[in-house]
Amino acid sequence: MNLIPIDDPRDPRVAAYLDIRERDLVGRHGRFVAEGKVVLDLLLSTGRFAAESAFILENRLAGLQAILRKAPSDFPVYVAGGEVMDEIAGFHMHRGILAIGVRGDPAPAEILVERLPARALAVVLVGISNHDNMGAIFRNAAAFGADVVLLDQTCCDPLYRKAIRVSVGAALKVPFASFADTATFTATLERLGFSQFALSPSGILDIGAAERPAKLALYFGTEGEGLPRDLLARLQTLRIGMAEGFDSLNVAAASAIALHHFSKTGDP
Amino acid sequence: MNLIPIDDPRDPRVAAYLDIRERDLVGRHGRFVAEGKVVLDLLLSTGRFAAESAFILENRLAGLQAILRKAPSDFPVYVAGGEVMDEIAGFHMHRGILAIGVRGDPAPAEILVERLPARALAVVLVGISNHDNMGAIFRNAAAFGADVVLLDQTCCDPLYRKAIRVSVGAALKVPFASFADTATFTATLERLGFSQFALSPSGILDIGAAERPAKLALYFGTEGEGLPRDLLARLQTLRIGMAEGFDSLNVAAASAIALHHFSKTGDP
Repeated sequence: MNLIPIDDPRDPRVAAYLDIRERDLVGRHGRFVAEGKVVLDLLLSTGRFAAESAFILENRLAGLQAILRKAPSDFPVYVAGGEVMDEIAGFHMHRGILAIGVRGDPAPAEILVERLPARALAVVLVGISNHDNMGAIFRNAAAFGADVVLLDQTCCDPLYRKAIRVSVGAALKVPFASFADTATFTATLERLGFSQFALSPSGILDIGAAERPAKLALYFGTEGEGLPRDLLARLQTLRIGMAEGFDSLNVAAASAIALHHFSKTGDP
Repeated sequence: MNLIPIDDPRDPRVAAYLDIRERDLVGRHGRFVAEGKVVLDLLLSTGRFAAESAFILENRLAGLQAILRKAPSDFPVYVAGGEVMDEIAGFHMHRGILAIGVRGDPAPAEILVERLPARALAVVLVGISNHDNMGAIFRNAAAFGADVVLLDQTCCDPLYRKAIRVSVGAALKVPFASFADTATFTATLERLGFSQFALSPSGILDIGAAERPAKLALYFGTEGEGLPRDLLARLQTLRIGMAEGFDSLNVAAASAIALHHFSKTGDP
């Protein structure tokens, strides 16, 4: 690695790290910010996204040698003390580990699902606009071996810093893509032979009774309103049985239960 | 209800609502803050905790009539405009719905578990120090009918404002109590006839193969370090099978899977 000490917060070489929080909201020209040790490790080891540079607090450097060696030898690793780093980032970086990744050209969702093998598990998200939920769903998708996550146009960005952090890096590991129109995309999945199940509190079949098809697409909707009615009418619907008087489950919790159920169930 | 308009941010009648965020951290003399419509509804309807007052943004009042009628007729409902409310709370209260609850004298954990029926599901938490996880676990406990949540001394406070909010009010519904010493408490549960399962990535039995005993205590530990070794050695251990290369599950997600599994499984 190429260690570069940074003493001046206005050093143009670390401009990508300026005001991390503010710039999260306005985008960063095809880049994203990865934060923390586990996330940095996944960024450098999965190879899904190119890493542009890392920015490390000087007293964290020793503990990161094994991880940073996964990067090319000319990979720039900027190093600064706490005060300089906090001034650049715009808030207190207690983790002291940042990196910039490059989004690249995302494959269209249709291409991604066409390339899936004969046994595949796809997660389809409609209207997931909360970064905590997005990150948690990716973490569950990775833990239970989902092959791909597909997002409608109203979902938030899985590469937002907080979503990546909550996903514990799963957003850098599980392939994902956006689709333009939900009805069209559902038709594509059907043509490709996917069984399509939608999780819904009003679902017809209890999830415990649902068998795992070889190619399965699992739909999750936003917490308040759930999946759109016209979509539910076209799909098989599954419910997760709950206690009377408190039938309220977070969408990430629902994804954990559903993905665990279908990942452990064998081929039909 | 007793509607009381508030025009002056220094009005002593709303002193309990001053600087909500700061005072969360230092405690509030046996009180807690409930926030949001669903949480207010649970506070007033479950009766587990006494409600002392509510503080409502004037333009939210009309939509809360049905909920506020659940309170006694002399229940003080302070009402203010946005500017006054924000100045009192110390930050922008976009929900505009607050209430103060009274903690009361919590029953010792030992008493709580002795009173449980012959078929009971107890959640035991050790070292859960993150309010998001605490709230999410309570939400899952309520959704899957757990009878009680029991906390060791290193757990965070379920009545912290954010934990209540993330629990969607479940922290005001599911009875909970703290115990002093984990080994002693585990012995108490054993004496009372509880089967005791600990969730652990290194668990011996896959959770899918575990049957539901009539009286079940389910242990969950902190995310990083998991449950203490000496505790795991005394309990039956369960694992949740995960994909190779990403065996990382959030503790709240683990609780969703485990509670769902044991709530749906019938008596042995």
